[in-house]
Amino acid sequence: MGQRRYEQFDVIGFDADDTLWQSEDGFRSNELRFVELISPYTAMGIDIRAALTATERKNLGTFGYGVKSFAISMVEAAITISAGAVPVEVISQLVNMTRDQLEAPVHLLPFVPEVLEQVGSATKLVLITKGDLVHQTHKIQTSGLAHHFDHLEIVLEKDVETYAGLLHRFGVAPDRFLMVGNSVRSDILPVMALGGHGVHVPYHMLWELEHVDHNELIVELASLAELPAWLGYD
Amino acid sequence: MGQRRYEQFDVIGFDADDTLWQSEDGFRSNELRFVELISPYTAMGIDIRAALTATERKNLGTFGYGVKSFAISMVEAAITISAGAVPVEVISQLVNMTRDQLEAPVHLLPFVPEVLEQVGSATKLVLITKGDLVHQTHKIQTSGLAHHFDHLEIVLEKDVETYAGLLHRFGVAPDRFLMVGNSVRSDILPVMALGGHGVHVPYHMLWELEHVDHNELIVELASLAELPAWLGYD
Repeated sequence: MGQRRYEQFDVIGFDADDTLWQSEDGFRSNELRFVELISPYTAMGIDIRAALTATERKNLGTFGYGVKSFAISMVEAAITISAGAVPVEVISQLVNMTRDQLEAPVHLLPFVPEVLEQVGSATKLVLITKGDLVHQTHKIQTSGLAHHFDHLEIVLEKDVETYAGLLHRFGVAPDRFLMVGNSVRSDILPVMALGGHGVHVPYHMLWELEHVDHNELIVELASLAELPAWLGYD
Repeated sequence: MGQRRYEQFDVIGFDADDTLWQSEDGFRSNELRFVELISPYTAMGIDIRAALTATERKNLGTFGYGVKSFAISMVEAAITISAGAVPVEVISQLVNMTRDQLEAPVHLLPFVPEVLEQVGSATKLVLITKGDLVHQTHKIQTSGLAHHFDHLEIVLEKDVETYAGLLHRFGVAPDRFLMVGNSVRSDILPVMALGGHGVHVPYHMLWELEHVDHNELIVELASLAELPAWLGYD
C-alpha cells in the first residue's frame, strides 16, 4: 500500500448509525427506562433486559430492525414479563418513548462533516444503512450530510447478497470498494467476503444482536477522524 | 396514439399494494377487529374507526406508512379511546394481529403474472412502493414476481420529488415513463406533474388517507388484465 491509499478505491461506503451519528444511546436509554417502568410489575428473579433482548431477537425476522420494531417488542415483552400485570398507562409511556426516540434530533459524532468533506473530494461516497425507513430517511435529511453521498441506501439486511447487489448497482468492482462502519458483522465481514475492503471504527456501545466472533484481521481505527490519514490524505 | 402504444415508454413503473397484490383488505379486517375489541371499553357515542384513522393521520409524519406504524397507532388509540380502560390482554391481541398481518402470505390480484410477463417483454419494468421496509421486501421476495423488475424501490413518500429522483436514477425522461397503480394521489398525479404518464387501476377499497380530489383527466382501466391491450399488445 502506498501513501495515496485512497487511489485504490472508486467508492467508499459509510454506515450511518453509530458511525456518523449516535443511535445505540437512544435504544439503551429507552431500555433502561423500560426496566425501571416494568420492574414494579415483575416477580423477583426476572432478568428484564435479557427478556426484552430475547423478544427483539424472536421478532427480528418478522418486524425487522429499527425503532418501531423495538417499540412493538417492548409492548409485547412488558405484557409477557409482568404476566399481564403491567398497567396500560405504562404501555402509553412506551409509545411516547418511541415517538420521542423517532423525533430526537440527530447527534453527529465528532469530525464527521470534516471527514466526509475531505474523503469525498477524491472518491465517490455512498451511505448504506439498515433500520426503519422513515426514521433513517429523517435522520439523513436532517443531518445536513446527504449532499456528500451519491447514493443513500436503506436496506433490510446488510449481508453478502445485499452488498453484492449494491456494488453491482454502483458499478464498482468489490476490490475497489471500501466500507466504513462500527459493526464488524454488518459493515465489514460481508464486504470482505465479496473481496472488498473494510475499516472498522468501533463505537463504545454495540447492540447485543450485532456482536459477532470472527478470526479475520480487520483494520480498526479509534475514530472516524483517523480515516483521512489512513487513506493517505495529509 | 398508434396501436403500439408501448413503444412510447422506456420504463413502466408498477405500484405494489392493491395493484399487484391485496393489501388494504388486511388493514380493513384488522380495523374491524380493533373496533370489536375496543367497543366494550369505550363510552357510547365514540366513533372508534374515525378516532383510529385520526391517530394514524397524526402519527404519519413520525411513524410513516405500513403495518408497524398501524400497530403503534392501534395501541395508542385503544388506550386513548377507552380512557385507559382497555385491558393489556387486548393490547396483546393487537400485537398478535400485527404479527399475523406481517406474516400473511401474499395474495396476488388476478392476471398479475401474465400481465407482467407480456408487458415486460418489450419494456423495462420497475416496482415502486411505499410502506414498511421489512414487510414490502418480504412480499416482493415471496411473490415470485421480483424477476420481472429491473428495480425494486421502497420509498418513504410517493411525491413529485421522489419520482423525479427515481426517474433520474433510472435514466428515463418523464415523457417516456408510465406509472400504473391504484392510488391517484400516490401513483398518478405526481408522475403527471413531472410530465410523465399514468394509468389508474382502482381497487375496490382505498385507505382514507389516500383519497384525493382532482380535476385531471386520468386513464382508468377496470383491471390490470386490460393493460396489455391498452399498451397495444394483441
